[in-house]
Amino acid sequence: MTVSATLAANEAIAARRAAGQEVLALGFGEAGIPVHPLLRQRLTQAAGQISYGPVAGIDAAREAAAGYWTRRAIPTGAEQVLLGPGSKPLLFALLHAVGGDVVLPKPAWVSYAAQARLLGREPIRVPVPAGEGGVPDADALDAAVREARRAGRDPRVVVVTLPDNPTGRLASERSVKALCEVARELDLVIAADEIYRDLVFEPGTFPSPAAWAPERTVTTTSLSKNYALGGWRVGAVRFPDSPLGAQLRESVRGTASELWSSTPMPMQHAAAYAWSDPQELVERVALARRLHGSVAHAVAEVFAQAGCAVMPPQGGFYVWPDFGPLRDSLAADWGIATSPDLARVLLERFGVVVLPGTAFGDDPESLTVRVAVTGIYGENDSERLAALVSKSPVEMPWIAESLAGLGEKLRALTAPE
Amino acid sequence: MTVSATLAANEAIAARRAAGQEVLALGFGEAGIPVHPLLRQRLTQAAGQISYGPVAGIDAAREAAAGYWTRRAIPTGAEQVLLGPGSKPLLFALLHAVGGDVVLPKPAWVSYAAQARLLGREPIRVPVPAGEGGVPDADALDAAVREARRAGRDPRVVVVTLPDNPTGRLASERSVKALCEVARELDLVIAADEIYRDLVFEPGTFPSPAAWAPERTVTTTSLSKNYALGGWRVGAVRFPDSPLGAQLRESVRGTASELWSSTPMPMQHAAAYAWSDPQELVERVALARRLHGSVAHAVAEVFAQAGCAVMPPQGGFYVWPDFGPLRDSLAADWGIATSPDLARVLLERFGVVVLPGTAFGDDPESLTVRVAVTGIYGENDSERLAALVSKSPVEMPWIAESLAGLGEKLRALTAPE
Repeated sequence: MTVSATLAANEAIAARRAAGQEVLALGFGEAGIPVHPLLRQRLTQAAGQISYGPVAGIDAAREAAAGYWTRRAIPTGAEQVLLGPGSKPLLFALLHAVGGDVVLPKPAWVSYAAQARLLGREPIRVPVPAGEGGVPDADALDAAVREARRAGRDPRVVVVTLPDNPTGRLASERSVKALCEVARELDLVIAADEIYRDLVFEPGTFPSPAAWAPERTVTTTSLSKNYALGGWRVGAVRFPDSPLGAQLRESVRGTASELWSSTPMPMQHAAAYAWSDPQELVERVALARRLHGSVAHAVAEVFAQAGCAVMPPQGGFYVWPDFGPLRDSLAADWGIATSPDLARVLLERFGVVVLPGTAFGDDPESLTVRVAVTGIYGENDSERLAALVSKSPVEMPWIAESLAGLGEKLRALTAPE
Repeated sequence: MTVSATLAANEAIAARRAAGQEVLALGFGEAGIPVHPLLRQRLTQAAGQISYGPVAGIDAAREAAAGYWTRRAIPTGAEQVLLGPGSKPLLFALLHAVGGDVVLPKPAWVSYAAQARLLGREPIRVPVPAGEGGVPDADALDAAVREARRAGRDPRVVVVTLPDNPTGRLASERSVKALCEVARELDLVIAADEIYRDLVFEPGTFPSPAAWAPERTVTTTSLSKNYALGGWRVGAVRFPDSPLGAQLRESVRGTASELWSSTPMPMQHAAAYAWSDPQELVERVALARRLHGSVAHAVAEVFAQAGCAVMPPQGGFYVWPDFGPLRDSLAADWGIATSPDLARVLLERFGVVVLPGTAFGDDPESLTVRVAVTGIYGENDSERLAALVSKSPVEMPWIAESLAGLGEKLRALTAPE
């Protein structure tokens, strides 16, 4: 979503609140749980760290990140890791390092396309396999890249998101393997954004492209989602242990030096702790996973009840309902023809804040919206903590009430009296 | 300096240290004083701030920054201010927002040119007025921009640094006024990097371009130099109160949203405190100013004694000696013909780390180097604090020893036996 669209939404929200009307804030991708006291303690202990430190990050944090990936079946040395102030600038520096055109799944998280455009390139969008999200369909990718090259374009990198924002889906192992084969065949770098990796709801194998295309997969992570620390601005990127990896790493390090110098030092110390996977934090992430999964499934069910097509969310904290089955009545009752129409009516008439599918590169006539479910976890840290430790978060009264309210609003939208 | 040059220097430093040889680290632009306990306290108090917060920064920090500028004779409203993770990414986003080609003083801080190149533009370099630094000579600027436009280029912004890195000089009011006139005549945006503003050694009027070209001057600041908080990554940009200012601000905000999301939240709270100019911090900055000024003058004197041409430093913590008067003997004794030769011999033969003038866009045959004087403030916080509060920092034994050692090395370089 563009900044101006965000501002317009914020104004509409403020106007509703000023008029005493309810607002259901399901727009923003914030994890919505309080900081773990041990992480806060680490930050506090490192508050005296004021030197710039190395561009690549302090050794302790890079070693911890290497351990984080190694424990997740991607053997990694500290020399393969760079830190950054969030994974966003690292992704930008990576796209710059690779050069050429950028291929994205359709839909895909908003900033990939914006970053490609900052580099002067319009992204090439390839649909995801039916029922999946976060990776382009391999056959369609193959065709699109060959077609683009015939047309004189120069696609060199494909970005994937596991699990996905906006769809909340985790690509299948089969789709990721096929993607890796095509990427190798066509010599594409795979940028694997795994920022929601630890928030996959069901246990099982995680289909990281680094497993099947280790020589060409660059992986990013961050504390922002797994630990709900978006405001601390610390992320990491892992480069492959290959000549290509070394070359990309040096280029990203150079860009880092000129664009952001280094990563906030006190946060690097907290990250060194978090990425060492101490038992207390492993348990914390397990609680977060349960909360997100429980509420995401409940929200998906509310949309399904209202007549939307919606796949069960598998990780992160997003739901991606498709109002396509309700197209005729939405057009007749509200004049809705596109996802921006839909998001506008939801906001202005019902106070429900969601992002239209177009923000993620979906076609306007696809009646998709992205729902961030974390906005209903509570009004304050006390409520959010109670939801976090509850075995049945959706029974917390404030969450149950929000779910019921959402259901009523959707009924009023889809079956007005 | 490129990252690879930095790495090579670091390797040479490590090799010397491993061999038990001395290293005089005068390469890095770090302020070299400990954090003030009240700033550390503010960071600690805000450690629980984990939400992303507004892209533009929290109101308290933007209001404080507006007050900071207003108290410095540049009336500013909070709506003119955006925060960023350091002023570096803000400058990059600004260059992107303005578009077109970038004009730089010659010499100028390393990252301006690197950022222009990231945007696909080779900077246009214009010499500074004789004896000054940080702003291009106005007549030369006029000629260079007109010439560039005739040649089909599109210069739209000139970057200035007050006081300057690398020269340590503060441009004269006369030069800044003339610059402002030319910028208005040629419709150039002025990007005024005032990151060292509070570290001008002598009291007096500060020649900010915002005073004479308020409609087109964009100003940046940060906590990194004035408060020695490079590792905290927080900076701010002030846009003019003009239609141009509003347009640039929205563009920078959009880039910020896609490149770095927001500024580390706990640091924003510390910045809100610092930029309110509380008495304790005003006094702290006064001490830092005295320390930097005292040592910079002493270092300049050491280079002058060795036969270099060196203008008295006026602010920040850099000295910019020119070994030109020693050209013949340096060529005969050491085969030195360029500033990179000179920096290499200083490092490899004498363990003195400085940056060659070429890193700042100076001609290779100009025998200039940038000396960051903060590297000799002490080995630990205890020594650095003692130097900070001393009325005569250069008499601290470790500083006096470093100055004497530097003098000996320069004598050995310039008059070898």
